[in-house]
Amino acid sequence: MRQKPTVLAREIVASSRLFRVEELQLRFSNGVERTYERLVSRGSGYGAVMIVAMADARSVLLVEEYCGGTDSYELSLPKGLIEPGEDVLEAANRELKEEAGFGARQLEFLAELSLSPGYMSQKIQVVLARDLYVEHLPATSRSRCVSSASTWPSCRASCSTRSSARGGRWPRCTWRAIY
Amino acid sequence: MRQKPTVLAREIVASSRLFRVEELQLRFSNGVERTYERLVSRGSGYGAVMIVAMADARSVLLVEEYCGGTDSYELSLPKGLIEPGEDVLEAANRELKEEAGFGARQLEFLAELSLSPGYMSQKIQVVLARDLYVEHLPATSRSRCVSSASTWPSCRASCSTRSSARGGRWPRCTWRAIY
Repeated sequence: MRQKPTVLAREIVASSRLFRVEELQLRFSNGVERTYERLVSRGSGYGAVMIVAMADARSVLLVEEYCGGTDSYELSLPKGLIEPGEDVLEAANRELKEEAGFGARQLEFLAELSLSPGYMSQKIQVVLARDLYVEHLPATSRSRCVSSASTWPSCRASCSTRSSARGGRWPRCTWRAIY
Repeated sequence: MRQKPTVLAREIVASSRLFRVEELQLRFSNGVERTYERLVSRGSGYGAVMIVAMADARSVLLVEEYCGGTDSYELSLPKGLIEPGEDVLEAANRELKEEAGFGARQLEFLAELSLSPGYMSQKIQVVLARDLYVEHLPATSRSRCVSSASTWPSCRASCSTRSSARGGRWPRCTWRAIY
């Protein structure tokens, strides 16, 4: 195990409604000093959850939503923030109902992932959801916009766009609305 | 294809050495108006590249580096920023030499990925590198710290840590230094 650097100083250097940037002064074990910046959680910080919801043994549910970062509609696994008082599996089931219109009778923790460990402190909990049933909850105020659900590999949109890129190896597949 | 929202206004609302936050006022096609925030590139913005470098037909090169976001050492595919005047494949080979100590005689574009399309405008170009040879370039000033190279599935560190998590399904494997 490598020895982690010593944090000599830390300071919030920029802040907005959603983002907070922390500057770290670090000294590594070889004596080298460096300035790093990272995004840290705002406010409560109960974490986030992403759901691998199996529509059947070979298909996973995807939702389509507008992504402000890339100014495009994208397909993704359902995901969202964990609310105060919720455990990870409860949050997964709520987000699945809000975003995809399904609940799950079987929920199982899979893994914790870092999206970008170099620049973000945030992590996301990944939950496997099976034995689905139809139940749609209205989105909470934190939800970003209405999504539609599809399944992979029977999806389209992002997949087919990317497969047309140079040498792209994304599967070619077709959209299928499931409710 | 869905109709994208209209951007009514945009403004930089926070800024630091590495990060810039843009606020967007959006009107969706159903008339709903929302405020979004996203991270946008700073300065030149030539993009970034990530390299899938095959040490042999079944093993991929990983580098270990300190990640300020999570305050931990992590294994990852080599990656870095594209410099002015470089094309994607040139940048991939340079980063591979700097971070992992290998050059590649075969380089092939694989795909463009969005790390977090909901919150980031940045994308990363993924390059497949084969037919490797030993060549170590000193890291440029933009590189973050010295990395060590390993191969997957013969890796350790992040993998074994994560496999011990609740129900984690990461492969258990052992570290092997390759130079």
